[in-house]
Amino acid sequence: MYRTGIIGCGNMGTLHGKLLSKNPEVRIAGVADVDPAKAREAAALFGCTAHESVDALLASGLDLVFITVPNTKHAELALRALQRGLHVFVEKPLATGLEDAQKVGDALKKAGSRLFVGYNRRFAPVYREARRIVSGAAFKPAHVNIIQNDGDMANPPWLTDITMTGGFMYDTTVHFLDMARYLLGEIVELRALGKAFFYPIPDDFVVQLRFAGGAFGAITTCGHASWISPFERVQVVGDHASVITEELDSFRYSASLGAVIEGKDFSKLAHDDKWGYAAMHGHVFDVLKNNTPCLNGFAEGLRVVELIEACHRSAAHDGEVIRL
Amino acid sequence: MYRTGIIGCGNMGTLHGKLLSKNPEVRIAGVADVDPAKAREAAALFGCTAHESVDALLASGLDLVFITVPNTKHAELALRALQRGLHVFVEKPLATGLEDAQKVGDALKKAGSRLFVGYNRRFAPVYREARRIVSGAAFKPAHVNIIQNDGDMANPPWLTDITMTGGFMYDTTVHFLDMARYLLGEIVELRALGKAFFYPIPDDFVVQLRFAGGAFGAITTCGHASWISPFERVQVVGDHASVITEELDSFRYSASLGAVIEGKDFSKLAHDDKWGYAAMHGHVFDVLKNNTPCLNGFAEGLRVVELIEACHRSAAHDGEVIRL
Amino acid sequence: MYRTGIIGCGNMGTLHGKLLSKNPEVRIAGVADVDPAKAREAAALFGCTAHESVDALLASGLDLVFITVPNTKHAELALRALQRGLHVFVEKPLATGLEDAQKVGDALKKAGSRLFVGYNRRFAPVYREARRIVSGAAFKPAHVNIIQNDGDMANPPWLTDITMTGGFMYDTTVHFLDMARYLLGEIVELRALGKAFFYPIPDDFVVQLRFAGGAFGAITTCGHASWISPFERVQVVGDHASVITEELDSFRYSASLGAVIEGKDFSKLAHDDKWGYAAMHGHVFDVLKNNTPCLNGFAEGLRVVELIEACHRSAAHDGEVIRL
Amino acid sequence: MYRTGIIGCGNMGTLHGKLLSKNPEVRIAGVADVDPAKAREAAALFGCTAHESVDALLASGLDLVFITVPNTKHAELALRALQRGLHVFVEKPLATGLEDAQKVGDALKKAGSRLFVGYNRRFAPVYREARRIVSGAAFKPAHVNIIQNDGDMANPPWLTDITMTGGFMYDTTVHFLDMARYLLGEIVELRALGKAFFYPIPDDFVVQLRFAGGAFGAITTCGHASWISPFERVQVVGDHASVITEELDSFRYSASLGAVIEGKDFSKLAHDDKWGYAAMHGHVFDVLKNNTPCLNGFAEGLRVVELIEACHRSAAHDGEVIRL
Repeated sequence: MYRTGIIGCGNMGTLHGKLLSKNPEVRIAGVADVDPAKAREAAALFGCTAHESVDALLASGLDLVFITVPNTKHAELALRALQRGLHVFVEKPLATGLEDAQKVGDALKKAGSRLFVGYNRRFAPVYREARRIVSGAAFKPAHVNIIQNDGDMANPPWLTDITMTGGFMYDTTVHFLDMARYLLGEIVELRALGKAFFYPIPDDFVVQLRFAGGAFGAITTCGHASWISPFERVQVVGDHASVITEELDSFRYSASLGAVIEGKDFSKLAHDDKWGYAAMHGHVFDVLKNNTPCLNGFAEGLRVVELIEACHRSAAHDGEVIRL
Repeated sequence: MYRTGIIGCGNMGTLHGKLLSKNPEVRIAGVADVDPAKAREAAALFGCTAHESVDALLASGLDLVFITVPNTKHAELALRALQRGLHVFVEKPLATGLEDAQKVGDALKKAGSRLFVGYNRRFAPVYREARRIVSGAAFKPAHVNIIQNDGDMANPPWLTDITMTGGFMYDTTVHFLDMARYLLGEIVELRALGKAFFYPIPDDFVVQLRFAGGAFGAITTCGHASWISPFERVQVVGDHASVITEELDSFRYSASLGAVIEGKDFSKLAHDDKWGYAAMHGHVFDVLKNNTPCLNGFAEGLRVVELIEACHRSAAHDGEVIRL
Repeated sequence: MYRTGIIGCGNMGTLHGKLLSKNPEVRIAGVADVDPAKAREAAALFGCTAHESVDALLASGLDLVFITVPNTKHAELALRALQRGLHVFVEKPLATGLEDAQKVGDALKKAGSRLFVGYNRRFAPVYREARRIVSGAAFKPAHVNIIQNDGDMANPPWLTDITMTGGFMYDTTVHFLDMARYLLGEIVELRALGKAFFYPIPDDFVVQLRFAGGAFGAITTCGHASWISPFERVQVVGDHASVITEELDSFRYSASLGAVIEGKDFSKLAHDDKWGYAAMHGHVFDVLKNNTPCLNGFAEGLRVVELIEACHRSAAHDGEVIRL
Repeated sequence: MYRTGIIGCGNMGTLHGKLLSKNPEVRIAGVADVDPAKAREAAALFGCTAHESVDALLASGLDLVFITVPNTKHAELALRALQRGLHVFVEKPLATGLEDAQKVGDALKKAGSRLFVGYNRRFAPVYREARRIVSGAAFKPAHVNIIQNDGDMANPPWLTDITMTGGFMYDTTVHFLDMARYLLGEIVELRALGKAFFYPIPDDFVVQLRFAGGAFGAITTCGHASWISPFERVQVVGDHASVITEELDSFRYSASLGAVIEGKDFSKLAHDDKWGYAAMHGHVFDVLKNNTPCLNGFAEGLRVVELIEACHRSAAHDGEVIRL
C-alpha cells in the first residue's frame, strides 16, 4: 500500500487523484494546494487530509508524492520531496531550466528513491503502436515530421505567463521533443527558428533535428493555430514503410510497397486509456514494486529540458546549430 | 493561331499535346523525340509532322515549343528554341544547374519572347484556394509545414538516374520549393539535411526555411515512403487561422477561433482540372495574347534552381545555413 | 423576464438550466425532482428554490416550465403545466403514446399558451445546412438513407427500462423520424421490421419510408452497434446532387455533376452550438416574445408519436405497410 | 492449358483478356465482337484469332469462353456456349429475366461443364474481410445498411438503354443484392420502392430485406447521385460489433464495446487486386482444375435474377411485399 500525496489540486491533480483512488495498492493520504479551498475540495473528493502546507503534507509519512503544480515549481517541489526520501511523480516538464533539473538529479541520487515524469503519451496506445513499428528491425526510420499545435495560447490565460509555464515549449512541445526521442532515439543536433508572432512570448517554433542513428526530423509547433484537427500529427518514414498518427486517435501503417495499410482507431477508448494516463500509472507502480527500469524517469526528464534549452538558445541566436 | 511544337513524346508530351489539341487557338505543327517511333505515334495522334530532329522541328516555322524531355536536357533545348526567337514552355525544372539556368535567362532577354515553367500546382484549385486565403490580409502566415513524398524512387527506374533527373529534388521537391514561395513569399534562408538512405543517390531531405516576411517553414521530402496518402500535404498556420491541404484533393480552412471549418474537395474533378494543367494552359495563352505578367515565368524557374542548389550545398556541408 | 421552472434535475435539466441561467430574459424561479437532493443541488447551482413537489413548483407563479424527466412522464407533466396556463418546453418525445399526445394537444388549445418539443437537431448547424440545401428548388430530393445507432442500450441501464423510455424508438430514433420530415417533408407511408435481438426489448429497426412529395427513405437504427463512428449519418440524393452528414460534425455537398464538393466541419464548435441547444433556446424565446410560428411545436411532437406508433404496429405485424 | 475465347471486346473483355494473358495455364485462342474492328484490335493485343462470328469462335475448339457483352445478351450467348459443352464465365448479371436464367441452368446441367458469374466484389479484399468477420460465430449480424449509387446514368449513354442493360438494377445494384447474400445469407423477403425520377427508366430504388437467419436489411441505390464518395458503402451491425466498408478501399471493424477499431485500407492496391478481378480469375481456374465448389456459380447468378425480378415487381405494385 503506497501512501501517496498530491501537491496541486487543479485539473492534473484531480486527474491523477482519480486514477490513484481506483488503485487498490494506493492510499491517498493527503493533498496540498496554495489555494486552501481547492485542497479541501480535493480532500473531500479523495477522502483524505487537506494539509495547510506542502511541508505539512511531505512530513505526514508518505511513500510517494504527485507534483501537479505550475511548471516553474516542479523542480523545487521535487527537490523537497526527494530530500525527505520520497518517490516522486512530477508532471512534465521535470524542470524549466538546466540547473534546477540537475539539482533534482543530485537529490534523487542521494534519496535512492524513484522519480517519474508525466510523459503520458509514451503510454498512449497510438504512440506505443508507433514505437513498436518504428523500432522494429525492418522499419529503418529515415525521417520524422511532427506537428504539435495549440489553438489559442490565451486559453487558459496562464499559458502565456512565462513565470508559471517557463514558455510555450515547456508547456506544450515538451511532449513531442520527448516523443521524437521515444520513436527515433537520441537527438544529437538541433536548430530552432522561433518568434513571438501573436503573443508577448515566443509562440511559434520550427525545429530541425538530427538523430544519433542518422535520421532527420522536423517539428513545427505553435500556440495560435485556431481549432482545427490535427493538433498533433506524426509521420515517420522508413525503408519503403511509413507510420502516420493523428491526434491520439488514429494510427496508420504501410509496411512495404505492396502492403495493405493497417489502421487502428483509438478514438472511442476511455479518456485515461486513450491518453495513456492509466497505463502510465500502471507502469509507475510496477516499477516501484519490482524495482525495474522505468520508461519516463529522470534521464528522460533531463534530456527534454536540455533540448528545450537548446531550442531557446538556437532561436535566440538566429538559428544557431546546436550539437548536443 | 499559335503554331506549336512538342519536343519529347513521353507521358508529359502526350498530356500537353492533348490539351493543345483541344485548344482552338493552337495548331500542333510538329513533334520530335529521340525515339522516332514515339515521335511518329504522337504525330499520328495529333495529326502533325514527326520531325527527325529537334533542329528540323525548331526550323519548321513555330511560334511556341513545349519541352517535355528529361530534366537535364531542359535548359539546352530551351536555349536552342529561344535562339530562334520562339516562345517556350518548359516542364519543371527550368534547368538542373545555375549556369544553365542563367544561360536560358540571357537567351530569353535577347529573344524577347516568353518562357513558361510547368509549375502546374500553381494552377491547381487546391493550391489556388490555399494561396487566396494565405495571401489575404487577415491570415498573417507564421509557418508552413510541407510534406512531399514519393513511394518508390525505383519506379519508374529513371527516377534514380541522376544524369536524367538531376536528382530527387529536381524531379520531385521542385514543386514544393516553388509552392512554399507561391504561398508565403520569398525564401531568404535555408538549411537542408539530406542523405542517400535507400538508393545510390540522396533520397531524403529535411529542409528548414526562413521567408522574407519573417515566417518559417519545414519541408520533409523523400523517395521511399511506400504507398500511403498523403503524398503531399501543406499546413500553413497564421494568426489564429490555419489552412491544411492533402494531395490535390482536399482543402480545409479555419478562419478564426470561433469558426466553422470550411472544406473543399476536388477529388472528383477531371484530371487536367484537378492537377492544374488545363488552367496553366489557359494562363499561357492569355499571357501570350495579352502580353501580361506571368505566374510561372523565368524568375520562378530560376529561383527554384537556386533553392535546390542551395539545398544540395547545405546537405553536402553537414547542414550549413545558406542565406540567399 | 420569463419566470421559468425546471421539472427533472438530471443531465438534461442541468443542460437546459445552464443555458437558461445565461439568458438575460430568463429568471430560473424554481426546480423540482423526485429526488429532493437532486432538486437542492440544482437549486444551489441556479440560485433558485427547490420545490418539494411538482405542484408546488407549478403553483409558484411561473411563465414557462421545462420538462426534463423520463419520457413516459412527459405528457402527464405537460398536461398539468398547460392546465395552469403555462408555456411548456418538453424534451423529446412529446409523449409515449397517441392518446397521451392528444390530451396534451387538447390542453394546449385550452391554455392558449405555447409548447415546444426538444428536437435540438433541427437547430444544429449541420442539419440546418442540410435542410437549406435539400429544401432548395434545385435539389429535388429523391431518397434519403439514415443511420442512427447507439453503441450499447445497457448504458445507461434505464435505456432498456421501457416503463421509463417507452422503448428504443421513443428514446433514440425519435430524432431521426423527426429529421426525415424536417429534411424531406411529410411521411405518408412506412413499413418497419423490428426485433429484440440482444436485449429484452426491441433494439433494432429497419424502416422504409414514402414521403408526400414522392421521395423514398430508409432508416436503419439499433442499440447494439458498439462504439464506432458514425452513430448518425444522413445521405440525401437529389437531381444529380447529394448531401452527406456524419455525426453533428460533418456536412458535405455535391451540387451537380461538375461540382467541387463543399464541406463544413462543425466538430470544434462549443457543445451547445454544435448540438443545437443554444439556437433552440434562442428560437423558443423568439417565438414567445414575438408570437411567431415555431419549428418544434406540438404538431412536430404529435407526428413523431404517430410515426413511432406506426413503426411499432408495423414491426409487430410482420412488416405490415402502414399508410398515414 | 485452357483454350479460352472472349465474346465482347469492350472494356470488360479487355480487362479479362489482360488477366487471362498473364495466366500461364491459359491460351487466349480467339475473340469475337459485333464490331469486327474491335475484335481485330483485341486479337492483336492478345495475339489470337479474330473470329467473324460468335459461332465461328465457339466452334474453334475452346475449353472456356468469357462472355463480356451487354447484359441482355448474356443468357443467349451462355446458352450457345453451354450447348457446345464449354465452360462459361459470364459477366454479371447471369441473365436479365427469369426464363432466360432457367434456360441457362438447364443447358448447364446437360453440358456438365462449369459456369461462373462475374461477381468480382466477392473476391475483393474489402468484402472478403467483411465476410470473414460477419460470418464469424461471434458477430451475429442483425442488420445491414447498403448504399450503392452511380453519379450519372447518362454516362456512358447506354446505361439508360434498357434493351442493352435490362435496367439500372441489372447493371448496377446486381452487385449489392449479391453482396447482401454473400455477407448475411439468403434473402427470404423483400419490398422495393422504385421510380424514374430523372431518367426515362427507373433510376432510384429503396429496398427492404429480410434474411433467412432473421436479420434485416436496407439498400438505397440510384443513378443520379452526382460525383461524391462513397458510391458504395456497407454497414453491418451485429452483437455489439460493427463492420463498415466504403468503396473498395476502406474496411473498419469494432469487435466489441471496449475494442479498438481495426482498419484496413486497400486504396493503393493494384486495380485488379483491389477490385477482386485477379482473385476471381484465380478462383475460376482453381475450380476448373480441382473440380471444387465455386463461390460465384449458377446458383448465385440465378438468385440475384430472382431478387431483381422481385424488386421490379414490388416497385411496380406500389411496394408489394414479396416472399421468396
